[in-house]
Amino acid sequence: MTRSEVQVQQGIERARRARPRLKDQHITMAHGAGGKATATLVEALFVPAFDNHVLERLTDAAVMPGGIALTTDAYVVSPLRFPGGSIGSLAVHGTVNDLAVSGARALGLSAAFVLEEGLPIEVLRAEVEAAGAAARDAGVAIVTGDTKVVERGKADGLYIVTSGVGRVELPGLDPASLRPGDRVLCSGYVGDHGTAIMLARDDMGLEADVASDTRPLWPVAAALGAAAGSGLRVMRDATRGGVATVLNELAMASDVGVVIAESAVPVRPVVHGACELLGLDPLYVANEGVLIAVIAADVADAALAAVRGAPGGEDAELIGEVAADPPGMVLVRTGIGGHRILDTLIGDPLPRIC
Amino acid sequence: MTRSEVQVQQGIERARRARPRLKDQHITMAHGAGGKATATLVEALFVPAFDNHVLERLTDAAVMPGGIALTTDAYVVSPLRFPGGSIGSLAVHGTVNDLAVSGARALGLSAAFVLEEGLPIEVLRAEVEAAGAAARDAGVAIVTGDTKVVERGKADGLYIVTSGVGRVELPGLDPASLRPGDRVLCSGYVGDHGTAIMLARDDMGLEADVASDTRPLWPVAAALGAAAGSGLRVMRDATRGGVATVLNELAMASDVGVVIAESAVPVRPVVHGACELLGLDPLYVANEGVLIAVIAADVADAALAAVRGAPGGEDAELIGEVAADPPGMVLVRTGIGGHRILDTLIGDPLPRIC
Repeated sequence: MTRSEVQVQQGIERARRARPRLKDQHITMAHGAGGKATATLVEALFVPAFDNHVLERLTDAAVMPGGIALTTDAYVVSPLRFPGGSIGSLAVHGTVNDLAVSGARALGLSAAFVLEEGLPIEVLRAEVEAAGAAARDAGVAIVTGDTKVVERGKADGLYIVTSGVGRVELPGLDPASLRPGDRVLCSGYVGDHGTAIMLARDDMGLEADVASDTRPLWPVAAALGAAAGSGLRVMRDATRGGVATVLNELAMASDVGVVIAESAVPVRPVVHGACELLGLDPLYVANEGVLIAVIAADVADAALAAVRGAPGGEDAELIGEVAADPPGMVLVRTGIGGHRILDTLIGDPLPRIC
Repeated sequence: MTRSEVQVQQGIERARRARPRLKDQHITMAHGAGGKATATLVEALFVPAFDNHVLERLTDAAVMPGGIALTTDAYVVSPLRFPGGSIGSLAVHGTVNDLAVSGARALGLSAAFVLEEGLPIEVLRAEVEAAGAAARDAGVAIVTGDTKVVERGKADGLYIVTSGVGRVELPGLDPASLRPGDRVLCSGYVGDHGTAIMLARDDMGLEADVASDTRPLWPVAAALGAAAGSGLRVMRDATRGGVATVLNELAMASDVGVVIAESAVPVRPVVHGACELLGLDPLYVANEGVLIAVIAADVADAALAAVRGAPGGEDAELIGEVAADPPGMVLVRTGIGGHRILDTLIGDPLPRIC
């Protein structure tokens, strides 16, 4: 085998290993970053303890009997406000999007606030109003909530946990249903959200005009469902861990390969430049308004056109396809004709990104 | 008017005032304690921003079209473990109980964990397993979840937010439906949870054998529904703010008076003694396994018998009744034949009780 083939073989073996064991003694920031450490924590600790078949599927939203979908997300983003959005709007979009990519139209949201003693009321008011406005914009109501306060130094301003309940309108989506020949659709520019947050933190003194893509994805999801019909295999929103993590999870779930063309992935030049300076790969950077869909080849062009006609999908592209080999892995076809392995995110380049 | 009559009149005026204005500039611990400050924050800030009719009812769970109920609660209890339970079991019971008192059987739960960097994995494992066991015991699955990590000093070990979706099996419950002559049922001993937490904190070096009452209430709720039928007006679980706060909210919602007999309220002697030393009134102390129900007089005895036959309802008592006057207020008939006003909780005697 060539060196490249050995690397691929090693990757396949990694990908196929059994349920991971949790070797850490303490929680680290990496456990919250959405990559391998998060997956290990969830699969080694939460899944066995909560032991049920719905959770084991580890989809964005759980679908219960009767077609009722439930999802939840905790938002601990820092800073609270950033170009293009804030924790309040993000907390609504992230949760309606988990429903949307599960094929579910949101029926109602809940919002629980953990507040730090001393938080200025005006900061809270701005986020509550941002959440309310985002919910109205997404056509869903925040129907219930909770508020708790912890002492100074036991939180960081405020955290929000939103849950959403929805009704599945696009049934049959399944991360294990990918087939060789299927196409991969990306609904918009990649990397905007994570890059905007990193720049807002001003960690390196960089300045660039990048705004978060935080927005509701149900219009894009509904357009996809209408155009692709049963040719729509699965949708995922590319949040923590980015496009790379979503594609890896799908490749593993379906035991297929996914090959994407680097040149086809929509990345804004300013994001590309900022990521280079920050040492990040845009494919691993979190998005809050981008979904990845896998669709049958014969409906791919129609689906792309439909997505581009939906609000939030104007910049969609077909970025790759499903292959029989290498099973459980994602390859990137580079500009110079070679391939590199796009592995699951390791470590924690972007803590508290959402 | 006598002095007592003046006090009652003043209370009526307070109770009838319009939507409160939020005068605070910063969040204080009182905003999370479940009393007047919490109510003011919710009514002055959250309700206008989230502007919808389901939220405005401010019930324990929101009921959406189709009879689907949604509820959420954030758990920030300190310490994480206490006699009778821990944050993991509490986070399940509190949420299934919000569904139960809304007449809804739980279909599924979500659990979002906010973890502090450095948290020992074994501490997390114990709470995840406690939540899983509590869910199985309550006959419901935790079908989805989320995990976020924040830096050391930005949380206090771990916080859990659980949401629950359920299907309404006991429709028509309404906090505004109380009528003079109705009876008030209390499903168990009052004050156990809050007293157990305070003793576990060891703030005053007191020791007493008090355990939290954290437990699922659906068996009690279902028994009440079966026995009282349409005579069941409303149920509420008496968590933050205790029995006193629940009764005040019901009196205000129905514009009726509620009169309870101090001697009829079940309080364990050890809780009574501990509360005296701690300067607390058990009627304001949080419970995590006690509901208050208001039922028509003609089915009250049958309902009491049914509740006593249900797991968790063995110690139920009828503790009072609904009266036409004084509207919007709660009175306690004391042992010596007088009455005192049982007002809504002000301030924050018990922060981070749940």
